[in-house]
Amino acid sequence: MITTRSAHTGDGAFLVRSTRELARSHDVLDHCVGTAADYDEALSHSSPIIGAVLAFVDVDFAGAAVWHRSYSTNRGKEVMYLEDLCVLPEFRRRGIAKALMTSVCAVAQQRGYPSIYWMAMGSNVAALKFYEEIGASIERDTVICRLNQDALSVLANR
Amino acid sequence: MITTRSAHTGDGAFLVRSTRELARSHDVLDHCVGTAADYDEALSHSSPIIGAVLAFVDVDFAGAAVWHRSYSTNRGKEVMYLEDLCVLPEFRRRGIAKALMTSVCAVAQQRGYPSIYWMAMGSNVAALKFYEEIGASIERDTVICRLNQDALSVLANR
Repeated sequence: MITTRSAHTGDGAFLVRSTRELARSHDVLDHCVGTAADYDEALSHSSPIIGAVLAFVDVDFAGAAVWHRSYSTNRGKEVMYLEDLCVLPEFRRRGIAKALMTSVCAVAQQRGYPSIYWMAMGSNVAALKFYEEIGASIERDTVICRLNQDALSVLANR
Repeated sequence: MITTRSAHTGDGAFLVRSTRELARSHDVLDHCVGTAADYDEALSHSSPIIGAVLAFVDVDFAGAAVWHRSYSTNRGKEVMYLEDLCVLPEFRRRGIAKALMTSVCAVAQQRGYPSIYWMAMGSNVAALKFYEEIGASIERDTVICRLNQDALSVLANR
């Protein structure tokens, strides 16, 4: 039996498991330094920047979706950005990703968010197929630009 | 003389000018429904989701950078997402984009953010050249997936 619920302070250990699994599957586990305490701290704020939905199969943790508040300057209002969607390998192909997305959409609707967006790898054909099946539009011709600590510091102190 | 300063409540009219110019240049002005009041409302919160830097040439508004708080699940902490960077057409090629980015980096550093990231169009060669010049790394193979109101509502109410 698949169930989902919103995450709260104390669920950091579940969330770290899914974040680390996602990083492992993208071969960037060495970038993954966040802890359960970091999640618990972020979730403890009065108006948290993040939120998450957890999925369980019976009593076993099976995956999670982590989102953060975002802002559309075109719309002039907050929107939802989906940061992580991960089903643990042993629980795949049972509809858990769809159950998580359904719950995330319900949260977005409750919060009055007009849209949810996220990034995916263009080469991840299976993921894109799933996203199109649930009604997402796919926008190509996008690149991600990033200033990391060193470059940021050089520019800040010019 | 180019000067920059952080935006605060009351600067919404400046910010809407740059957001609308950016939308116009990307041929999506019809998507641009946010108002000066929306910006002023967002900036008035005690811990706003957005922030912005304004640039002036002498007393004339010349452009703006609008960022929002984001969250890296890998890092377990907040990072900065740059939503809009726009120099008004009549003020281009004077170093204003670099002045804005410098100020944005200083804000990021003050707030303890370890990185800044943003999206760009892969076909916008001039923009990517500028971003590389200021030290940004460019990650390709990315697509943006989006659930708009209708699809979100269908999924939420399954």
